Amino acid sequence: MPILFTNVTAVTMDPVAPVLKNAFVAVEGTKIASMGTERPAGEFERVIDCTGKVMMPGFVNAHTHVPMALMRGYGGGCDLHTWLNDYIFPAEAKLDGRCVAAGAALGLAEMIASGTTCIADMYMHTETIAQTVLEAGVSANLSCGAVYFGAPEDFSPETCNDCGNHIRLYENWHNAGDGQIKVDASIHAEYTSCPPVWEWVANFARAHGLGMHVHVSETHSEHEKCIDKYGETPAQLLDRYGVWANGGIAAHCVYLSGGDAQLLAQRGVTAVHNPVSNLKLMSGVAPLFFLRDCGVSVALGTDGVASNNSHNMFEEMKVAALVQNYSFGEDHGQLSAADILAMATVNGARALGRDAGVIAPGKIADLILVDFTAPNLFPCHDIMENLVYSAAPSNVVMNMARGKIIYENGTFLTLDLEKIRAEVEHYALPHIFG
Amino acid sequence: MPILFTNVTAVTMDPVAPVLKNAFVAVEGTKIASMGTERPAGEFERVIDCTGKVMMPGFVNAHTHVPMALMRGYGGGCDLHTWLNDYIFPAEAKLDGRCVAAGAALGLAEMIASGTTCIADMYMHTETIAQTVLEAGVSANLSCGAVYFGAPEDFSPETCNDCGNHIRLYENWHNAGDGQIKVDASIHAEYTSCPPVWEWVANFARAHGLGMHVHVSETHSEHEKCIDKYGETPAQLLDRYGVWANGGIAAHCVYLSGGDAQLLAQRGVTAVHNPVSNLKLMSGVAPLFFLRDCGVSVALGTDGVASNNSHNMFEEMKVAALVQNYSFGEDHGQLSAADILAMATVNGARALGRDAGVIAPGKIADLILVDFTAPNLFPCHDIMENLVYSAAPSNVVMNMARGKIIYENGTFLTLDLEKIRAEVEHYALPHIFG
Repeated sequence: MPILFTNVTAVTMDPVAPVLKNAFVAVEGTKIASMGTERPAGEFERVIDCTGKVMMPGFVNAHTHVPMALMRGYGGGCDLHTWLNDYIFPAEAKLDGRCVAAGAALGLAEMIASGTTCIADMYMHTETIAQTVLEAGVSANLSCGAVYFGAPEDFSPETCNDCGNHIRLYENWHNAGDGQIKVDASIHAEYTSCPPVWEWVANFARAHGLGMHVHVSETHSEHEKCIDKYGETPAQLLDRYGVWANGGIAAHCVYLSGGDAQLLAQRGVTAVHNPVSNLKLMSGVAPLFFLRDCGVSVALGTDGVASNNSHNMFEEMKVAALVQNYSFGEDHGQLSAADILAMATVNGARALGRDAGVIAPGKIADLILVDFTAPNLFPCHDIMENLVYSAAPSNVVMNMARGKIIYENGTFLTLDLEKIRAEVEHYALPHIFG
Repeated sequence: MPILFTNVTAVTMDPVAPVLKNAFVAVEGTKIASMGTERPAGEFERVIDCTGKVMMPGFVNAHTHVPMALMRGYGGGCDLHTWLNDYIFPAEAKLDGRCVAAGAALGLAEMIASGTTCIADMYMHTETIAQTVLEAGVSANLSCGAVYFGAPEDFSPETCNDCGNHIRLYENWHNAGDGQIKVDASIHAEYTSCPPVWEWVANFARAHGLGMHVHVSETHSEHEKCIDKYGETPAQLLDRYGVWANGGIAAHCVYLSGGDAQLLAQRGVTAVHNPVSNLKLMSGVAPLFFLRDCGVSVALGTDGVASNNSHNMFEEMKVAALVQNYSFGEDHGQLSAADILAMATVNGARALGRDAGVIAPGKIADLILVDFTAPNLFPCHDIMENLVYSAAPSNVVMNMARGKIIYENGTFLTLDLEKIRAEVEHYALPHIFG
């Protein structure tokens, strides 16, 4: 039986009618069934009065490593090199599937409570993450980020763990939950693998029609070392091996040069901006105006909690807007609140091959309600301005993912927070940190 | 009767014992009576178990314009000039005392719910703000920011409105509420007044032993125009008229030159950093490492909501850390989470002449409890890192100002939020925005 939202004020992300008022929105199954100022006929399982609230598409966190919630603030204050080598890599070496499941559930709880309905994740023990996501109810594009440190001439798909991981993940999980889970092909990054891996992953994606998820030019040194080693930038080098044949996600894109942006635009690759993580690790600020001028679609992500240290897409929007407009706005005009909201919703959905991120009939019902009577969102002179610059996770009073309410008024309906906390505290933390 | 907090984990901001565990903290009257690992003798009105929570000093928002909550997001997306002239100034021209009271109450509600216990405010209708603050329960240094656009030779204290405002504010409100309200002398900024005003305000402060609150070098053009006009920077020019004789607050300090920082250090003036507002208005990033190296104490503020667009000191801390460390950290080493917390608490308290901002016996009991079991604050590898980079307003489960609990588990105990909302909606907004 369908659900009806009444007295809806909505930020639709539909450029034709970006703000809708006094409307009815009906949801049936996983989709938005109807939308308009007339009450639709029929019976409803539930009627939800949205007076005082604003509906918007759920956030798409387009680049994250959700189990890293276990490492929140771990090694904070160190430089990138020390942080990775002395803290993160040793901790990750101790992870098992049970730790990853606990960390994924914890990260998803934070995401769901702050309005995220869809993620693109890259991490190890990916099948465990898939199971956790399936139960939590959000949509996810999952990938295992191929890493290979052997000699290129020794590479074979049979001996490379991450080739096997790709195959199992695809066979067991692609389109699971009626499309709730999608599997992306994935290369962790240019500097953690080599040409035969890129070729294999590109062919795997092409053979199965999969998306692609790669870390691209996150730091200056990574970008320059690639040029020194191969005579090409990471984006262009990977392209020669067919990595971008199906488009995909290039995470970070802080340093681009020599036609990189034009190439990404041409291949339909989305650049995922992670401003908080890039600032925290002192990596830099991705050039969003330049990307836009080159025709590259930009989405937003939090990256892992270990370098953020949260999964708060409201904060990601605000920091993205503040830093970009301050750094480059004088020459380019400011990014508007609508631009930023598009990065956090519809642009990410499109990058992940999801018919979501827009409130319109036929779209996937990934919807959140934000309480605009809260003292930090009142008064409202401009809905989009308030969403980008004033809203906070606690203003999210409902999260509906794929037509199902998974969080409402502080209560998780698919996750058992007490159980998650106990599992993190009594199993995962002792197992990893001793 | 005193209140006892048990099982306390506290970030004390006392350099000797910055983190306290398994402790008892007793509060009597407006002060912290005792603190230690032994349960104090005596009877208590209430015993509050702090298991799973972290106690820290309440935030000191050291530069704000609290009634501007009414203008949240108003004129967003415009450049500074258009924003001020086409939006803010016309709106402010329509303010009356009743609007200001409603806006102040609304702003205070947001501040209290997000853990602020003390503010330094500069705005018009200041006596109305004082009454609102007194009822709300936080401490406040209030000032009316002298503005004078007449010819210097026409100035007289009798005809300059803001001289009269200074006198009335001082006579009626200084030390009201047993010191809850303090009155600061105040010049809005160098560019909105002239030498005889500065001299009068400086003398007024000296005569009554008041603090000083001035906007200093917020924008590059303001700083340069002052040098063109007077041959000196704003900080040094004002010093010649005795403005810094009692120390005080220099808000913003984005552009400093030619010995400004050394002068501020010598005079004991605190620079108040407002990173979100400075980024939103594209003004710049204050050089915190340079200020620190020159011996200037730095505090944090949100500025007005119209240019922020919130009163969220957690966000202010995170943005301050991210932007400063990214912009200048490579050459200076990073600002630590402890440095940032000091800016948000004890440094502000000291600047405002408040014996608060530190959890220690005898200090004013301005204390907040932060729920560390929330999914965005769990697990905790480092308490200070979690407070600066992961915590959000909704994690504040208790706000105690001057020994009195004014907010607990989402409930305001001194403010009537429904009444405030109604007053804003039915009186202030129609009155100002038509």
